[in-house]
Amino acid sequence: MAKVLTDREENYSQWYNDLVIKADLAENSAVRGCMVIKPYGYSIWEKMQSVLDGMFKETGHVNAYFPLFIPKSFFSKEANHVEGFAKECAVVTHYRLRNSEKGGIEVDPNAKLEEELIVRPTSETIIWNTYKNWVKSYRDLPILVNQWANVVRWEMRTRLFLRTAEFLWQEGHTAHASKEEALIEAEKMINVYATFAKEYLAMPVMIGTKSENERFAGADETYCIEALMQDGKALQAGTSHFLAQNFAKAFDVKFLNKENKEEYVWATSWGVSTRLMGALVMAHSDNNGLVLPPKLAPFQVVIVPIYKNDEEFSKISERVKLMCEKLKEKNIRYKFDDRDSQRPGFKFAEWELKGVPVRIAIGPKDYENNTWEVARRDTLEKEIIADADLIEKIGFLMTDIQENIYNKAFQFRKEHTFKADTYEEFKNILENNPGFIEAHWDGTRETEEKIKEETKATIRLIPQNPVMEEGKCIYSGKPSKFRVIFAKSY
Amino acid sequence: MAKVLTDREENYSQWYNDLVIKADLAENSAVRGCMVIKPYGYSIWEKMQSVLDGMFKETGHVNAYFPLFIPKSFFSKEANHVEGFAKECAVVTHYRLRNSEKGGIEVDPNAKLEEELIVRPTSETIIWNTYKNWVKSYRDLPILVNQWANVVRWEMRTRLFLRTAEFLWQEGHTAHASKEEALIEAEKMINVYATFAKEYLAMPVMIGTKSENERFAGADETYCIEALMQDGKALQAGTSHFLAQNFAKAFDVKFLNKENKEEYVWATSWGVSTRLMGALVMAHSDNNGLVLPPKLAPFQVVIVPIYKNDEEFSKISERVKLMCEKLKEKNIRYKFDDRDSQRPGFKFAEWELKGVPVRIAIGPKDYENNTWEVARRDTLEKEIIADADLIEKIGFLMTDIQENIYNKAFQFRKEHTFKADTYEEFKNILENNPGFIEAHWDGTRETEEKIKEETKATIRLIPQNPVMEEGKCIYSGKPSKFRVIFAKSY
Repeated sequence: MAKVLTDREENYSQWYNDLVIKADLAENSAVRGCMVIKPYGYSIWEKMQSVLDGMFKETGHVNAYFPLFIPKSFFSKEANHVEGFAKECAVVTHYRLRNSEKGGIEVDPNAKLEEELIVRPTSETIIWNTYKNWVKSYRDLPILVNQWANVVRWEMRTRLFLRTAEFLWQEGHTAHASKEEALIEAEKMINVYATFAKEYLAMPVMIGTKSENERFAGADETYCIEALMQDGKALQAGTSHFLAQNFAKAFDVKFLNKENKEEYVWATSWGVSTRLMGALVMAHSDNNGLVLPPKLAPFQVVIVPIYKNDEEFSKISERVKLMCEKLKEKNIRYKFDDRDSQRPGFKFAEWELKGVPVRIAIGPKDYENNTWEVARRDTLEKEIIADADLIEKIGFLMTDIQENIYNKAFQFRKEHTFKADTYEEFKNILENNPGFIEAHWDGTRETEEKIKEETKATIRLIPQNPVMEEGKCIYSGKPSKFRVIFAKSY
Repeated sequence: MAKVLTDREENYSQWYNDLVIKADLAENSAVRGCMVIKPYGYSIWEKMQSVLDGMFKETGHVNAYFPLFIPKSFFSKEANHVEGFAKECAVVTHYRLRNSEKGGIEVDPNAKLEEELIVRPTSETIIWNTYKNWVKSYRDLPILVNQWANVVRWEMRTRLFLRTAEFLWQEGHTAHASKEEALIEAEKMINVYATFAKEYLAMPVMIGTKSENERFAGADETYCIEALMQDGKALQAGTSHFLAQNFAKAFDVKFLNKENKEEYVWATSWGVSTRLMGALVMAHSDNNGLVLPPKLAPFQVVIVPIYKNDEEFSKISERVKLMCEKLKEKNIRYKFDDRDSQRPGFKFAEWELKGVPVRIAIGPKDYENNTWEVARRDTLEKEIIADADLIEKIGFLMTDIQENIYNKAFQFRKEHTFKADTYEEFKNILENNPGFIEAHWDGTRETEEKIKEETKATIRLIPQNPVMEEGKCIYSGKPSKFRVIFAKSY
């Protein structure tokens, strides 16, 4: 069969693009930087949404919906937010079209908005402007709200899922009566993300906080999870911000505390996006295609019949259908690929490309012997399994594949997490065998920026409970008490 | 207790607005015409989404996601679409902000888009431009795709849920190899909507097609469901369009049929929106507040403890908690309102306002007698129920209330569906006791427009299988073979 993907080792970036497109996850649209998420890709995203939504609700959150548009003036209200946040935004200036004399339509110049509207790049401002009316007393707190929404950031260089002008995400926005409670919330949610990454994406992540440089504009602290991709680059997979009273002050959101005194409200915000789709692709896939964790796979099992004529097909189909009933009972998501227009080899390659965790095939010989050929996507191993044992085997594989791809990713990260004690070592690692680098840093913004300028590596995170040790900053030589995690990143 | 709502009989429109706001469903935002859907309202919408999504999937559909923005030129491609579709759209003209010398931020004039982007008012154009690349042969058909999304139509006069600039909806867009198949699809989906309205919203609907005047711009046929609100006005609750080959021709989407000949693809689109929230409110509520059908209520049961001191509260709470366990087992969505800050009377009124189907209260006497006071929201009836019978009673009420509010709405519609044989009768009904009016119509656009001009009533639908009878158009006196349904509408 002709090769569908560029080899990962040859051109990682091209391999990724090929994969996203060929596996029917997403494609570029007619609108610059905006993607179409295709049904197969969207189905994975839906599963992520559903699990995350359940986790948010279990931790006491409810969903709501806020406007797509934000008045321009709102952005200027929180000084750091407007300063730090990228200004590449879609701006709505008019509200009407009209027929053009030249044919077609044109923007009606008489329908100019008094104040321009920004398509939300994130919703802190519009939401805190709303919370102002929701909060009077400590009894109205906490507000634990999440929103599933689309947002737009006018990125110049875009890549499917990883960086697109429009993307889908959830953004939690919570309001609290005390600093402590807000801090607990921000940490709780980064841990929810870490658990989700581990248990569903089968992706190990490091948890920590961002340096001042990399912090969210308007936050006093940004917690993050960082995952390592197969090319040794880090990918920020989720963030949770402790916003202190910054937005409350900007939007004048105060409450009467139990002592009947007025105080500003404390805030957090936290989000993950369709970027997780990119992380999922890059964390596990190989040169044959996607490798999906069973918990998120649209189809966990695909069944391919092998036959030469209608009679064989009809006999085999009958047995497949019996098996489908059993799979259904066990809540296994399966697909019986009974297309007559494609040959088994084509189907095998296609489902491998699409990352289906388990493929089972049945031909005339299997029919006679009452067996099935079972192939697992993660290791590409094949086995002949007796009909009576198949369901149990599949149950086992669902767990085993989920664990195995996690372990493989964990092992990869372990092998690609290095210590560098000098700047030479540091640059050497980045050049020859990149990954996470634990190194001493003097804690200054200047050093961080210099290192970024010279190597493109940034501080991905400051560990939450770092091992304390005396050391010297790899760049400035100044004393440092613990290591931080550097990497090049997406 | 002070009255929270304007009486329905006094000012229906104010009653509706009060209700939506006071019951915490939604509120107006800082952005003109855009609403905030509050957690309680959003929770109902989520339930609608979840049920509808399941129904779409059962009928073979999958979800996908297409861009928020549509290049302006796309709109002109389908002549009727651009002609008929309202041109009140949000237009993105710039992609960057910058710091202003006067302070604050301003639109960067150097970041003007070459071609303006329209925030989607509906997605036929961008989707058919995408399908062009998805369809080569009959084997690629049908495409049965749905999208959950936000859309924007710059309405001048807006009302929460009923008509807002931004709203949430789903839009199905399907592609077929034959006219017959597309017609079957369009009818299938309007029937899905009708089933949903009846079984979940507890709202009877009429099914039919639109007159040419009221048809979707770009459709050859629009199927619709229409419900009658308590003020005798009709509300279009869902539409399903047979788009023929119109969009396929506009975007050049052809396929090779089984005979290896090129043909244009056949299309449908169908949608329901957060407007259903408005329908739900208006179909069942009363002067005390919302009346929610149990299947969509965020809380199906609320439990209010009545006590004078901590000791009583703690004894009662224990019993409530036992009951909560049982409710949980039965998958009843319940809320134990143990707020100490509010008195029972306040809580009763609040949950009545919020439409919780069943309220159960327990005070010291109930505690002694091993009983509960059970109140149903639809009839406001109260009953004392023995502890041992409570779960069964609640199970019964879930079904009975759902049915009862449907029957009530059905009865209301029956009583407000009239026949008019003359224009005088017609106007009389509209003026004195409005509702659906079955009347003869000569089938012309002119007559329809005259009637609309003079009475504000429009043809809501043409029945699918009308009773055939000889008659005369109420307006022109010309012959007519069957009656159509007129009403004033939202």
